[in-house]
Amino acid sequence: MRAITIPEPGGPEALVWAEVPDPEPGTGELLIEVCASAVNRADVLQRQGHYAPPPGAPTYPGLECSGTVAAVGPGVAGWTVGQPVCALLAGGGYAERVAVPAGQVLPVPVGVDLVEAAALPEVACTVWSNVARLARLDRGETLLVHGGGSGIGTFAIQFGKALGATVAVTARAGKHGPLRELGADHTIDYREQDFVEEIRSATGGRGADVILDIMGAAYLGRNVAALATGGRLVVIGLQGGRQGELDLAALLAKQGTVAATTLRSRPVEQKAAIVRGVREQVWPLVESGRIRPVVDRRVPLERAAEAHRLIESSDHLGKVLLVRER
Amino acid sequence: MRAITIPEPGGPEALVWAEVPDPEPGTGELLIEVCASAVNRADVLQRQGHYAPPPGAPTYPGLECSGTVAAVGPGVAGWTVGQPVCALLAGGGYAERVAVPAGQVLPVPVGVDLVEAAALPEVACTVWSNVARLARLDRGETLLVHGGGSGIGTFAIQFGKALGATVAVTARAGKHGPLRELGADHTIDYREQDFVEEIRSATGGRGADVILDIMGAAYLGRNVAALATGGRLVVIGLQGGRQGELDLAALLAKQGTVAATTLRSRPVEQKAAIVRGVREQVWPLVESGRIRPVVDRRVPLERAAEAHRLIESSDHLGKVLLVRER
Repeated sequence: MRAITIPEPGGPEALVWAEVPDPEPGTGELLIEVCASAVNRADVLQRQGHYAPPPGAPTYPGLECSGTVAAVGPGVAGWTVGQPVCALLAGGGYAERVAVPAGQVLPVPVGVDLVEAAALPEVACTVWSNVARLARLDRGETLLVHGGGSGIGTFAIQFGKALGATVAVTARAGKHGPLRELGADHTIDYREQDFVEEIRSATGGRGADVILDIMGAAYLGRNVAALATGGRLVVIGLQGGRQGELDLAALLAKQGTVAATTLRSRPVEQKAAIVRGVREQVWPLVESGRIRPVVDRRVPLERAAEAHRLIESSDHLGKVLLVRER
Repeated sequence: MRAITIPEPGGPEALVWAEVPDPEPGTGELLIEVCASAVNRADVLQRQGHYAPPPGAPTYPGLECSGTVAAVGPGVAGWTVGQPVCALLAGGGYAERVAVPAGQVLPVPVGVDLVEAAALPEVACTVWSNVARLARLDRGETLLVHGGGSGIGTFAIQFGKALGATVAVTARAGKHGPLRELGADHTIDYREQDFVEEIRSATGGRGADVILDIMGAAYLGRNVAALATGGRLVVIGLQGGRQGELDLAALLAKQGTVAATTLRSRPVEQKAAIVRGVREQVWPLVESGRIRPVVDRRVPLERAAEAHRLIESSDHLGKVLLVRER
């Protein structure tokens, strides 16, 4: 089969569409004939040589896909060849076929087309596991999402609203209109406004109960300042660096929590538990239309470099899909 | 009545036994005739002028006491005059009488004498709320307690063992014997040993699932290094400073959490919820003898300065009680 490979780390041009060995479904795995994959920022890091795939994972990029079941490995029940699915991957989604543990596979939600289903697994698993399961966002609380225009951001807005929370986002001013249409109650232009002041004024001085952060060190101090009493900061990206200053007295005065998580490096059984939670608690929201995949555009899979350039520019809104031409 | 007052912040000699107005039990409060109080490090900070009592709290120190109910305020049910009790206070325990919200009062556990009961409220509430409720220490996990010889430490060792955890502590070498007798599985001499290395070697490289920390900034980096995957660091003291360096990439690689909490500044209803939890989940362990109050010594209340000197020397093991002479 063919896949996007990274012979040498580098810029977008490092992505090379090439012939590679066919994957085989091992015990407990499904083989998926890929219809679409999607670009995640981790793919860019991997392309640059900063994010090695976890042991045992396919070496080419792609953390999610949609497609149809092409083969069922030994020990797998409940899936049949030809069934439309989407999946959370440890890598290898930028390919014609990919093998994945069956616990990471989801049915395509009713009402979502097969290509767009590729936009869902990574954001649904990331947002549900962090916002609902870890941070326990509750009805009536305030969720602040940094990077509201990203795939994660556009999903988190809709998910936060579905949970009954007030949702604030930081994003470039040009994205504010569509993010409000998705449900964002407060939009903050991080280039012109101080998000700490803005979230305080939006909450009568209380601050955010939950913050979903992708900036890491660069925002750590201000995120703690923006937390409400009892607030939970969840860091899922380090776009602003890893080594931050933490004011423990400020955190202590707020009974606050700072958590940092990643999805990709978790063991298979933890991913399966998250995928089960998503199927139970998120899929019904997608099937009822409360949450929809937000897709910026579709790019042919073999032109993944174009999609990476777009993601790096941060000009997109929602997910950038990589689609197989047939 | 008389109480230990702090006319001017300063050293132990700043504590002055003086005549003060009698407290009155307000709506929802009990008045307690104090039998004993206990010294907490927060009292030392308050004496030094670094820790103002929360609004509405008595201005003199003392975060816990035992005694008998002297009067029952309006709207309080379930308590009778003369009943032996102990209580979590927002201040005012270093006194002959103190008024306290009824939700912060506990019966004296069966089998514990009235003086020693003063050793329990603060440590039981602090350890239960942080180790059990917030960090959810589970059977088979490893708990690392810094300052194992303190009141908090000696209680946390016993509580961790009662939950079925492995317990490691840092403490001066001279305290290791008694701490092992209390149940500590691993004792680490923080002056001579690196606790990160020691906890790793004690856990086959895994690290601690939960760390209960009193050092704050000074230990932040090493605490994160000492965490197991999925580990929870709970900071309840800042003896090593407030402004620490947090390596978010290390935390993220471990799916780790850093929380910081304090008990004193919480609203009355949160304290009442903690006290209810302690009564349900900790008191039975005390009454069955699984956990006992560890008391270093009893000092007459009017000589509180002596007790403060002892706490500041860190030569004590367990709680230092302040006892009324009758």
